[in-house]
Amino acid sequence: MKKEKIPQPTIERLPIYYRCILQMKAEGIRTVSSEELGRRIGVNSAQIRKDLTYFGEFGRRGIGYEIESLIEDIMRILGVTQERRMLIVGVGNLGTALLRHRGFSKEQFHIVAAFDSDPEKIGQEIEEISVYDLRLLDTIIKEKDIEVAVVTVPAKDAQRVVNQLVGCDIKGILNFAPTQVTVPENIKLRNVDLGVELLRLSYHLTNS
Amino acid sequence: MKKEKIPQPTIERLPIYYRCILQMKAEGIRTVSSEELGRRIGVNSAQIRKDLTYFGEFGRRGIGYEIESLIEDIMRILGVTQERRMLIVGVGNLGTALLRHRGFSKEQFHIVAAFDSDPEKIGQEIEEISVYDLRLLDTIIKEKDIEVAVVTVPAKDAQRVVNQLVGCDIKGILNFAPTQVTVPENIKLRNVDLGVELLRLSYHLTNS
Repeated sequence: MKKEKIPQPTIERLPIYYRCILQMKAEGIRTVSSEELGRRIGVNSAQIRKDLTYFGEFGRRGIGYEIESLIEDIMRILGVTQERRMLIVGVGNLGTALLRHRGFSKEQFHIVAAFDSDPEKIGQEIEEISVYDLRLLDTIIKEKDIEVAVVTVPAKDAQRVVNQLVGCDIKGILNFAPTQVTVPENIKLRNVDLGVELLRLSYHLTNS
Repeated sequence: MKKEKIPQPTIERLPIYYRCILQMKAEGIRTVSSEELGRRIGVNSAQIRKDLTYFGEFGRRGIGYEIESLIEDIMRILGVTQERRMLIVGVGNLGTALLRHRGFSKEQFHIVAAFDSDPEKIGQEIEEISVYDLRLLDTIIKEKDIEVAVVTVPAKDAQRVVNQLVGCDIKGILNFAPTQVTVPENIKLRNVDLGVELLRLSYHLTNS
């Protein structure tokens, strides 16, 4: 792997390439050209070739990329080889849906604890995952060696919960609360705001 | 509003500015500087000033931007002034959570119908929204004048459902299925793939 700095847009696209080639592997396909990958993803093939050279992958003319070795390389770059433990704060509609979903284990993320401040929810089990009192956050994070938190609390509580997580040395946060939260630079934050996605869709519907 | 082409990253940020200044308005704040907006969102203030000039908004030195007029302008640009009707395909965990969520109406998106192919789900009502047989898609879209579809079906069914939606002249699709789907150029597609977000987080956790 080259040591030069990888551009952020390349990093953003890499998981999408990974998704696609995993699916192709499942279809029994062994090699893929940048054109075919581009057609499936909706990215132009020159961009794909350029992105993959950052990781030292070069397709062979007339053959393309070997899917098996491409998967191994991307897994290593993305860190998917390592199991990660995750918690959820906020056992409402979305939090419960994510607990029941169980679909993150193929990305090596495992939900091992849930938290809420509602006494009626604390002590429950959802899909064999215990719902703890939010006051136990620090204890459970250390006990269970948790790296990542998924935040599904109402907007008004989000920054307070995020501050609490930062205080417990969480390393990464996936925020679903429909509000912007801020974290110190050493914490990795990804926002998934469904309302923002709808507004972006709205822009395109209005201006097309 | 200027007529020059607005860059895609500016469009991506605009809903985030909108989110933030709506919150500031709720806090009773009347004007905002680009520095304060930048601090809240985590974008540098020069970028914010540049983005807003595309929309003809200019802050006044020492005062900043008037929140009320900024909100009105951004609403017009994003098309939030117009009510839009939306449907959900796939009444599983996530689909049900979104139906119960009811939080999209402030973005002027209203869910008016749900669809599934499971006979046990068809005919049910969730939060007063009927679950229809997927075979009725075309009829209901036209009857209820629906513009946008939220897709929450399993990955293996996603492209088939998307093709069906495209055939029914839907204008925009928000895809939650953990797979890449493709649409013709005239259809607006946004992918919200939680697994991809986790992989991006994984990259940063691995390489920091």
